[in-house]
Amino acid sequence: MRILVVNPNTTASMTEKACLAARQVASESTEIIAVTSAHGPVSIEGYYDEAMSVPGMLQAIQAHQDFDAVVIACFDDTGLDAARCITDKPVIGIGEAAYRVASMLANKFSVVTTLSRSVPALEHNLLRYGMERQCIRVRASDIPVLELERDGSEAAHKIAQEIELAIRDDRAEAIVLGCAGMVDLAERLSAQFSIPVLDGVTCAVSLCESLVRLKVKTTRQGGYAPPPTEKMTASALHATGCQATD
Amino acid sequence: MRILVVNPNTTASMTEKACLAARQVASESTEIIAVTSAHGPVSIEGYYDEAMSVPGMLQAIQAHQDFDAVVIACFDDTGLDAARCITDKPVIGIGEAAYRVASMLANKFSVVTTLSRSVPALEHNLLRYGMERQCIRVRASDIPVLELERDGSEAAHKIAQEIELAIRDDRAEAIVLGCAGMVDLAERLSAQFSIPVLDGVTCAVSLCESLVRLKVKTTRQGGYAPPPTEKMTASALHATGCQATD
Amino acid sequence: MRILVVNPNTTASMTEKACLAARQVASESTEIIAVTSAHGPVSIEGYYDEAMSVPGMLQAIQAHQDFDAVVIACFDDTGLDAARCITDKPVIGIGEAAYRVASMLANKFSVVTTLSRSVPALEHNLLRYGMERQCIRVRASDIPVLELERDGSEAAHKIAQEIELAIRDDRAEAIVLGCAGMVDLAERLSAQFSIPVLDGVTCAVSLCESLVRLKVKTTRQGGYAPPPTEKMTASALHATGCQATD
Amino acid sequence: MRILVVNPNTTASMTEKACLAARQVASESTEIIAVTSAHGPVSIEGYYDEAMSVPGMLQAIQAHQDFDAVVIACFDDTGLDAARCITDKPVIGIGEAAYRVASMLANKFSVVTTLSRSVPALEHNLLRYGMERQCIRVRASDIPVLELERDGSEAAHKIAQEIELAIRDDRAEAIVLGCAGMVDLAERLSAQFSIPVLDGVTCAVSLCESLVRLKVKTTRQGGYAPPPTEKMTASALHATGCQATD
Amino acid sequence: MRILVVNPNTTASMTEKACLAARQVASESTEIIAVTSAHGPVSIEGYYDEAMSVPGMLQAIQAHQDFDAVVIACFDDTGLDAARCITDKPVIGIGEAAYRVASMLANKFSVVTTLSRSVPALEHNLLRYGMERQCIRVRASDIPVLELERDGSEAAHKIAQEIELAIRDDRAEAIVLGCAGMVDLAERLSAQFSIPVLDGVTCAVSLCESLVRLKVKTTRQGGYAPPPTEKMTASALHATGCQATD
Amino acid sequence: MRILVVNPNTTASMTEKACLAARQVASESTEIIAVTSAHGPVSIEGYYDEAMSVPGMLQAIQAHQDFDAVVIACFDDTGLDAARCITDKPVIGIGEAAYRVASMLANKFSVVTTLSRSVPALEHNLLRYGMERQCIRVRASDIPVLELERDGSEAAHKIAQEIELAIRDDRAEAIVLGCAGMVDLAERLSAQFSIPVLDGVTCAVSLCESLVRLKVKTTRQGGYAPPPTEKMTASALHATGCQATD
Repeated sequence: MRILVVNPNTTASMTEKACLAARQVASESTEIIAVTSAHGPVSIEGYYDEAMSVPGMLQAIQAHQDFDAVVIACFDDTGLDAARCITDKPVIGIGEAAYRVASMLANKFSVVTTLSRSVPALEHNLLRYGMERQCIRVRASDIPVLELERDGSEAAHKIAQEIELAIRDDRAEAIVLGCAGMVDLAERLSAQFSIPVLDGVTCAVSLCESLVRLKVKTTRQGGYAPPPTEKMTASALHATGCQATD
Repeated sequence: MRILVVNPNTTASMTEKACLAARQVASESTEIIAVTSAHGPVSIEGYYDEAMSVPGMLQAIQAHQDFDAVVIACFDDTGLDAARCITDKPVIGIGEAAYRVASMLANKFSVVTTLSRSVPALEHNLLRYGMERQCIRVRASDIPVLELERDGSEAAHKIAQEIELAIRDDRAEAIVLGCAGMVDLAERLSAQFSIPVLDGVTCAVSLCESLVRLKVKTTRQGGYAPPPTEKMTASALHATGCQATD
Repeated sequence: MRILVVNPNTTASMTEKACLAARQVASESTEIIAVTSAHGPVSIEGYYDEAMSVPGMLQAIQAHQDFDAVVIACFDDTGLDAARCITDKPVIGIGEAAYRVASMLANKFSVVTTLSRSVPALEHNLLRYGMERQCIRVRASDIPVLELERDGSEAAHKIAQEIELAIRDDRAEAIVLGCAGMVDLAERLSAQFSIPVLDGVTCAVSLCESLVRLKVKTTRQGGYAPPPTEKMTASALHATGCQATD
Repeated sequence: MRILVVNPNTTASMTEKACLAARQVASESTEIIAVTSAHGPVSIEGYYDEAMSVPGMLQAIQAHQDFDAVVIACFDDTGLDAARCITDKPVIGIGEAAYRVASMLANKFSVVTTLSRSVPALEHNLLRYGMERQCIRVRASDIPVLELERDGSEAAHKIAQEIELAIRDDRAEAIVLGCAGMVDLAERLSAQFSIPVLDGVTCAVSLCESLVRLKVKTTRQGGYAPPPTEKMTASALHATGCQATD
Repeated sequence: MRILVVNPNTTASMTEKACLAARQVASESTEIIAVTSAHGPVSIEGYYDEAMSVPGMLQAIQAHQDFDAVVIACFDDTGLDAARCITDKPVIGIGEAAYRVASMLANKFSVVTTLSRSVPALEHNLLRYGMERQCIRVRASDIPVLELERDGSEAAHKIAQEIELAIRDDRAEAIVLGCAGMVDLAERLSAQFSIPVLDGVTCAVSLCESLVRLKVKTTRQGGYAPPPTEKMTASALHATGCQATD
Repeated sequence: MRILVVNPNTTASMTEKACLAARQVASESTEIIAVTSAHGPVSIEGYYDEAMSVPGMLQAIQAHQDFDAVVIACFDDTGLDAARCITDKPVIGIGEAAYRVASMLANKFSVVTTLSRSVPALEHNLLRYGMERQCIRVRASDIPVLELERDGSEAAHKIAQEIELAIRDDRAEAIVLGCAGMVDLAERLSAQFSIPVLDGVTCAVSLCESLVRLKVKTTRQGGYAPPPTEKMTASALHATGCQATD
């Protein structure tokens, strides 16, 4: 099986990190194809970055037709609904994946994410997924996404502090790490705090494997009905033009 | 006061229709600046079109800095949150505007929109705005957006039929017309059915005038915090490249 | 256009303050008619005052038929639904108005009101309007309404303290001032805290202007259907009797 | 124990009917004191009537201090919150009572009320009480309240028809009759449809007996804190004046 | 009237305490039949204990057919829905009863229970009953159930501390004591804190008396439809076998 | 990896059917251990059967310690929370699994189950999981569970009829089959109706494989904290006694 892991921002080091994590959890027979969006913001922090990254991400998906499932490797689940319109293969966002795994392991969980500007977008997703009661609080650690990529960063320490508060004040039974860049911290923090600390990339890859094995498809009726071919072609053409100018 | 009415799709006739409606309701001293997105889909029907239209729409807003408020003239409120990040001037979507006006005039309302593929996106918006109880049902009339632009179309008739059902079966006390292309029908249908039948364009222009007179601004804290300048510049540069290839 | 601003309590100085604020925000061509309820409580703090003030307020509206819209100048939106039954002109409560404006400017807001006894009534309104998720918390500053009218009062200071807490602890992106008597503080506090601080009177007047320009009416179907004439006459007669004894 | 059953409308025949029903269910040692509001509408159908009836009803309660609990005998639970501010004795509305009993006997229920104009007010109450999921639908039978008092009326037949629809279409497991005037139908309809058909007056009287036996009181903190004495006296004085002119 | 008070755990001293409390509040003519489950856990603290106690409790109910109503004397309302399937007599859980009484006396309340492991189960019940908005918070005092039975225990002191926090931080207007073992504390704590402090056993007994006087029955349609006789007999037979091995 | 598929009813043919389905979807290296509960009802239709089946099911889990994950093969997710307390291995109910898969493939879905008596229990689960908005309706086909086991049954036809209604009237984008006994119908019905038709057994097995590969565990904090050893031992002993008498 081939799983396309698409990083909707343009920072290749984050794609690599996600890819590494994806491979660790994937079955031996699963091939991980990791792609970085060709254009868009260098990191996704809030609504504006989200919006600017979606067309690039959708074009990346359209360019790789030979896959069995797609993982959107941004915790905002950027463009998830749009991506489900352009393929009948399962598409999972890493935020969504982590929330769904958390809710199979714990009654209540909290999210620890990067900047406070990202919090409302995550809260909207949680509401949409029906997780507004199971997720007690989305906590911002005030670490910019790219700081997570820097050696010697204080990031891990700050995240641990927020987890401590989530356990004490939110009575969280599990923690969801709210950024693709935190993927390497989950295992260590799980051990440290003796509760599930979940990372979205691994959760999404593993859930994708499930859906592929189940041979289920994204519905083609209603909100995920495929757009007419002429619309798809038009945007693909435009995209080509865009990339030529980069 | 200058209100920017931005049509996020690329069909100029829809921009003109929205502009005309905007001018009818605007105060004498209000200038309506109507712009059509330079690139993106010809109509917005569902998640994919929404996603593909947002960058073009944001670029159109960034290109017109000299305004006091912005109306997003698509009933899906395409890119509303992102637009609020790039200006502290009030930004209102026409879907949002119609819902808010409806809820000041009636206990409960129904929406009559175009295609059923648009329904889930509208339902997500309604939930996000806290309107999931006041809006009883989003009804699809199964008319494609551009059919509304065609002379001799059956559209008006089909919409009237859905309104009749909404009054009888949903016990709707008001109706929201769910597409910018229906702007010319509202007055006639209000008279026909003796309940408020609302169009989003006029509602949004009028609410914008309110907010400008109130001298209020979109918050700069939390989810609508402005993106860092380098991100804005990067996407503007990219956008220029894009337009050159059109 | 003529907007009736009705103060449902009997304290004329509050009517004057509301009237002044209303005039500042109203368009030049808008006439503000400010009326004080002829009988009822001197201030509205909680359910009992609300209930006792409604008939006086409704009679004041019935006595002034020559208006285009009505503002109910009490933050509890006292008698809002009943008022919508006796006129097809738009009727807006100042609490409702401030919440709706806040939700067009910010993802989340908190309310700072007077006494804690008023909090549950406001929370019921927020729930009814679908604002229970966008309003994070209703905070009581423990200032009686009439204390806001006294020179040299500590009120402004206490309100500022609660706003500080709302920003820090509720992560509020905007503030709604929860009493008609706070109308003169909004501008100063907005500047002090760099987020929107909204007052209901100005919001309601401005939204009324919008609705009048839109030529929309309160629905006459369902919950806002007009009461039969004999019921209206009966209560008007009774009201006359009441006033004669004052 | 003495239970005050206050009819907030001025139709004495409805008070008598409620009183009769109250006595049938009350314990032998319980005294029912039935009072009719001295002024206000002849029936309560929607928001306007509700608002106009509350002061008269509160005055009736204040005039009868020697009671152990109060039943508000209008299905809209008119003035319930205000009444709880003026006495620490338990106060129950008949709508509230019937909903609470229904939810101890069935997973889901429907309401059959009189006019459709009353439906939104009832739906607001249900939401406030947390019954919006357990109550599937509020059905209007389109019978005016006073028609229920007329001999030879079609009312009972129409109500039975709505119950049939509620069982078939709403999958209701119990029915709440939504008007004090339907009190004499409950037993017969329960037998006819083999599910609980509940009337609010009897439910409220019986719940009042429970609360009195439990020796519990309405809280004096927060939203039900008693108004200051001078406000109570002022309105009592005004009320006396009012009644003198009747 | 005969009310069966069934203690779903096997600790007889708790049954006695509940029985004593039940008798204090019951009418003179009401007979309290208190039974202890023949097998199952010694105390009910969380999901596992709940599940293991239900068959024993149902068998205890089936063994005592001569009653008019049933009280399930565990604050988790263990097996409430199942119990409603095996008798058409009213069945009330003590958690449910206390919540319903609290919501007739106060706008908002908090629960003070024993161990934090019980909190999610209580929160699920509150959600199911529609109390998730009226109950602000379920607080764990970290006292094991059986510690409440021990002389000289610190339990009462710790509970009082949590009530203090609930009033200050949750703005609770009433308190529900979240364990059958706290029944003897309610009256004293009500006096100490000047707000209603409710115990479930007394609330449930009193509500049962209400329902019996109302002559209402649990619905036999839908979710509470009685299981086929052969299933009832099978489990009764099995139960007998079980008891023989005790 | 070893997955324990536990059938909480005592009908071995249903266990076999579930086991067969489980094996079809499981990876080659996954071993399916299917167990039938030693005592309890022959089928689970509603609250009573659920309650009576849980201890037997928990004992079956306790008896098989050598597994990596547990599937509860009853669509009511019988005893799911209790099972999560007795092992830190992932435990998934087949109802829960199907809902979660459906919500990754479609905006909205409907459930088609067996008897209407099961509907409220399923609705409670959906609410608890946060699926009450995504699941539009739970439809009863009025087929008893064991009828699904009978050759020549009309069951498949009736189920197809309900799916047709769900697509037309509920605007369902996917269908969840609400009974373990329908496992063999999913594939055929998916093809027939061109939307995802999901069966819980296969969904649960596949999700279990995901969780095991992720190396995540059920939380040991809060609601799923393990019961004290003496309670576990007590119930195990009792269970042994029980089985001896069978």
